[in-house]
Order: sequence, then structure tokens, then C-alpha cells
Amino acid sequence: MKSDGEAKLPKYHLIANEVIERIKSGDLEPGMKVPSENEIIRDYGVSNTTARKALQEIELAGWAKRVKGRGTFVLRKDVIRSADRIVSFTRNMLDAGYTPSSRVIDTRVVDGYSAKINGRSYSIGGPVYRLQRLRFADDIPMLFETRYISGQLCPGIFGEDLTQSLYAIYENVYRLELTEEVLQMSCGEISSAEEMELFNLEDPVRAFSVEGATFCGKGIPLEMERSIYRGDKYNFSITATK
Amino acid sequence: MKSDGEAKLPKYHLIANEVIERIKSGDLEPGMKVPSENEIIRDYGVSNTTARKALQEIELAGWAKRVKGRGTFVLRKDVIRSADRIVSFTRNMLDAGYTPSSRVIDTRVVDGYSAKINGRSYSIGGPVYRLQRLRFADDIPMLFETRYISGQLCPGIFGEDLTQSLYAIYENVYRLELTEEVLQMSCGEISSAEEMELFNLEDPVRAFSVEGATFCGKGIPLEMERSIYRGDKYNFSITATK
Repeated sequence: MKSDGEAKLPKYHLIANEVIERIKSGDLEPGMKVPSENEIIRDYGVSNTTARKALQEIELAGWAKRVKGRGTFVLRKDVIRSADRIVSFTRNMLDAGYTPSSRVIDTRVVDGYSAKINGRSYSIGGPVYRLQRLRFADDIPMLFETRYISGQLCPGIFGEDLTQSLYAIYENVYRLELTEEVLQMSCGEISSAEEMELFNLEDPVRAFSVEGATFCGKGIPLEMERSIYRGDKYNFSITATK
Repeated sequence: MKSDGEAKLPKYHLIANEVIERIKSGDLEPGMKVPSENEIIRDYGVSNTTARKALQEIELAGWAKRVKGRGTFVLRKDVIRSADRIVSFTRNMLDAGYTPSSRVIDTRVVDGYSAKINGRSYSIGGPVYRLQRLRFADDIPMLFETRYISGQLCPGIFGEDLTQSLYAIYENVYRLELTEEVLQMSCGEISSAEEMELFNLEDPVRAFSVEGATFCGKGIPLEMERSIYRGDKYNFSITATK
């Protein structure tokens, strides 16, 4: 009798998923051994063929690497974000093998916004739509962002589905093509009680703090942002030229 | 009787320098008031003209800003480093208003070096010159770098003056023009006893950890590096494009 949908999936797949979840949650850390074939046979009461297939699936999905005669070891699976190309969170997470999602924390309309980025002042005149979102990779809160969107360029944007990529809304709804983004990146910490609750953390973690202004070829910013990226999850990649 | 060289400088200049030193050392922090005209008159026994000139000089040098009727306040003077352009530490510090210098910590020749940067492996075959330096802005240790230099492209580089810019040596001595640099930036901490002693710190501070490979149009790296940038001193600026 199959009483639930999951039972239709092959057993080795369920076992692999369970181990991958332990890696994603940090219970199994990079460099640690995943359960051996014998441990899987014992713990799940399966055949050695099923145990072997489960280990193969974990390795194929890129979460671990088998070292002959020594075991199967967890690989690092950090997110690398390209800082010199405009790339959406959604795209970035999909490329890293995660399922992205967003939770809207707050929306409000403000009179205007300005900030100093890399020593230069940028501003957006009102009305400005201020959107705060927490963004997830699978179930892990990865970054908290406050975005200030030009009401002149994107009137009525709060009527759109704000859990999707804003870049997609800019392009598909407002026909605005993003051309350039200036970013200032600092090294900080997620340590206030409020932030730690938001990120569901028990201890402070290091963080990247990013301020940015994004343009669509009109000389004035389409949006500006202040974001906090979890420093224990993110690496930034940059290609520098002369 | 003038007994030392400094006495030849105008008094307001000496007072301004002393206040600027207190800002640089962190004794006076951004947002704090610098001594007022009356405090300078009292503490240094000078006229109000001299006191006013000292405050003007501090403001002109970009270290503070006078707010009418409220006082003169210390400005932030963080270093902003462009991450998407190849720029030497020396040039970067001069632009930020500091005097750069370097202290060689260790030199050795190793058989080769390889590292994974942004998920890709890069390596330099032997001999590889490994150079560790601590780099200063005025007297503040700003970053600690380990650089691995291709002995094939730069034979005998340890015979050069290693306290100067390596980029200048590559270009002037070896006629190598730097074309591209790939960087991976992580968020970390200066917290080991060894590192804290090196940076002359009493408490841990946050830090950028940078791994990079630099090319000179030959497809193989001219040098690779691992560096620790003080996160309380550095901001990185980046321009992202589509």
C-alpha cells in the first residue's frame, strides 16, 4: 500500500535527498564524510545496490566526492556571485543548484532617497517605492535587501508580484533594460537581535554589506539598494582589467 | 631660538597636523567634533586667527567638515578600492591621501602553486617566488599579502627592491603588461594570534579575504595571490554591466 506521493520515488533517491538536506543544513560540513555504504545499509535497512546508488546520486548532484578506499566526502557548495555582471538573485541561485524564493517584509512609498556610493552622491526623486525582502536559497535566508525604486520609471510596481525577480519586472512590464550598476561593498556583521531573528540565526555571522545604484541608460538611477549578504554563504567573483 | 626643523612651519600647520594624526589613529572618529576654536586657543596658547587657520587647514585637507553654528566634524576617510580595475596598492593609497609603504615578511622559492578561484583551478609551474608583505597606509597595517610569482616570467625578481610596487617591477623590469585579474572575495576575520600581532591589533576585526590570479596576455598566470584586507578600513567599488 502506497499511502503518500513520496513513496513512488525510488528508495535510493529518498536516501540521497535526506543526506543532501543534512549537507545543506550544515549538519554535514565540507570535508566531512557522508554515511558509508555499510552505514546506509544498516540505518535504512536497504540492499547494498540501493546504498551504492544513493551515494552515486549524491556525488552526481555535486554535493560530495568519492575518494577511492577512503569514503565519500562533502564538497563545498558556496554561492559565487559575479559582482561585475548584473545578475538576478533568482538566476544566481538556480546556477548554484538552489531553489530561490523571496518573502516580502515591508512595502512603503517614500518621498525620495539618496546615498553616497564610492564617494559620489546618487538620488532618486519621489515618489520612491521602498521594498524590503528576505531572499532564500531552498530554505536558507541568504540576503536581506532594501530596494528603492523610481516611481517615475516604474509607476504602480507594487501592483506586481513582488516575490519574483524585480529585474524581470523592469524588463517585461516597464520595458527598461538595465545597463549599469555601481556597487560599494563593505565587510560587516549580522549581529543585531532584529537581523539575527530575520536570518534565523543564533549567533552573529559575518556579512557583506552592499550599496548600489542601477541604471537603465537614462543617467538617473532606476533603483538603489542596500543589502546584507550572509558572508558565510557568499563569495564574490570579479574580473579586473587595466 | 629655533631649536628644531619643525618650528619653521607655521603654528597653525603644526596644530592641524596634530589633529589630523588623531583622526588617522582613530582617536577622533568620524562624526566626532574636532577641537573648537576656543579649545585650540586654550590648549595651544595661540591667537584666534591661528586657531581658525588650523581648522580651515584640517577642512581643506578633507578630514573634517565645518557645520555652521555647530562645530567642525570628522569625516569618514575610508579607502575605496576599485575591484574591477587593476590598481596597485601604492596608487590606491596615494589617491586616498595616505603615504604607502611595504614591509617584506618572508621570501622563499617554492616548486609551484595552484588554487581554485571562482570554482576554476589555476596554477603556476615552478620555480615560483613566494613573497609575503605587510602593506601600510601611513603607519596603519592595511593588508597582508602572499604573492606567488612566476619564476619563468620574472627570473631573479628577488634581486629587485621588493618594498616597491610589484606591478611597477613587472612593467619596468620585465616589460610585462598586466591585462586581466580574476578575483574571489570572501568575508572573514583577522582573529588568530599570529595575524593580530602582524596587524598590531588587540581585538579581532572583520576582513576581506581575496584570492586572485593576474595575467599578462599569455594565458598562464604571471602571479597569484592570497590577501587579507582589513574590513574596517576597506570598501570595494565595482561597476557591473549586463
